[in-house]
Amino acid sequence: MKRPNIIGIIGGTGRMGQWFKAFFEKKGYEVLISSRHTQLSSKELAQKSDVVIISVPIRVTVEIIKEVGPYISQEALLMDITSLKKAPVEAMLKYSHSEVIGAHPLFGPSINNLNAQTIILCPARGDTWMPWLKEVFKEAHLEITTPEKHDQIMAVIQALTHFFLLAFGTTLKEIPFSIGTLMRYSTTNFQVILERVLNLNNQNPDIYASIQFDNSFYYEQVFPSCWKALERLKKIIQDQDYNDFIHLFSELPK
Amino acid sequence: MKRPNIIGIIGGTGRMGQWFKAFFEKKGYEVLISSRHTQLSSKELAQKSDVVIISVPIRVTVEIIKEVGPYISQEALLMDITSLKKAPVEAMLKYSHSEVIGAHPLFGPSINNLNAQTIILCPARGDTWMPWLKEVFKEAHLEITTPEKHDQIMAVIQALTHFFLLAFGTTLKEIPFSIGTLMRYSTTNFQVILERVLNLNNQNPDIYASIQFDNSFYYEQVFPSCWKALERLKKIIQDQDYNDFIHLFSELPK
Repeated sequence: MKRPNIIGIIGGTGRMGQWFKAFFEKKGYEVLISSRHTQLSSKELAQKSDVVIISVPIRVTVEIIKEVGPYISQEALLMDITSLKKAPVEAMLKYSHSEVIGAHPLFGPSINNLNAQTIILCPARGDTWMPWLKEVFKEAHLEITTPEKHDQIMAVIQALTHFFLLAFGTTLKEIPFSIGTLMRYSTTNFQVILERVLNLNNQNPDIYASIQFDNSFYYEQVFPSCWKALERLKKIIQDQDYNDFIHLFSELPK
Repeated sequence: MKRPNIIGIIGGTGRMGQWFKAFFEKKGYEVLISSRHTQLSSKELAQKSDVVIISVPIRVTVEIIKEVGPYISQEALLMDITSLKKAPVEAMLKYSHSEVIGAHPLFGPSINNLNAQTIILCPARGDTWMPWLKEVFKEAHLEITTPEKHDQIMAVIQALTHFFLLAFGTTLKEIPFSIGTLMRYSTTNFQVILERVLNLNNQNPDIYASIQFDNSFYYEQVFPSCWKALERLKKIIQDQDYNDFIHLFSELPK
């Protein structure tokens, strides 16, 4: 199995970059990092590394890939870790000659280890690095799919879910009761959703913006379906339509 | 402290009625039950009991209170356990001369004991029974408030939360991925909300319909606020308005 001598992380001073640096170092690998704050340039890092991981803010990902792609060797692996896979994988294929795998770790930098975490991998060019990735990420649950299917599924798992959490949180701001008061009267349903809303305060809004704005399957298909469901339910409430309410309730996913 | 010799549960063959019957019997009380399926009539039960608990389907609650109220003694306690408090408490005050407390246990009949559960009590006439209720429900978290405030808070805790869960569940039915596929790619956010949606299948849709339709604070104030939040977010997505998205994100409840 091919293993890297050097792993390079571009954006390695960010929180996710730091997480992966610590993760690989703990496993005994030499890790280089580059960012606007390092002396080592991203081009130098790209030339020296056997595995190049792009961990920069989502809106500069394609630009950075374009910049460093030509410097990565044909035998190396180029891998991004952004929340969408179609555009970054296309850019990695276009601007490099290296092996390409898009990755989406479904976790943030606050976790301690990979147990019970999911990483989605989208192999796009070459097949010599996958055995090593499967080994190095063996504690995680790995799903292997295409960039297209990844983005379609994330349109539901992330974009749709975030939309509901954001709408719920925004509504709570308009309500004449404090979060403290509401919590005293809380049900399990309310409590678990409120916890997820409060947790958004620890997240990077740029990533959430990209997940809402940059996924065409979301805004062309999932969001319109969601709006249709909302309008149907709005009509049921306004018409006090008991029969359609019971029908909708009976049709919920099982 | 006044304690009941006999507790009567009208609707005592239903799941919540059976739960309270077992609960009080375990504490050593004699419990009578009546329903369409018992030989004992609700009027006889009302005459014999020191505490009368109304545990019938929500849409017949006021009708049953009207029917049995006049037979309950002035010293007895009349208490309903429906999800809204304004209309049932008004009916209990109007159709009886007994002491009146509206109750809303925030749990279903599947729980084993009262630990970590909340019961909301709305005392409306008389004060001789509250000490006993506080004792008999001592394992639960009790909140004491007015029927009006209860219904306002439940417009958020229950009605708003259910609206989002129902809309989320209905949207998932329109998506070209099975629940099984989605779960393989699940995040914590998606998973906890999906669990709450799936749990709706174990619930009584009549209660959910009443929570959506019968709470004026919900459909006059909370739901319009919610729809405003949804439309704001819809516009942000359609316009890809990054600045307003970041602004909305920064304004989430803390």
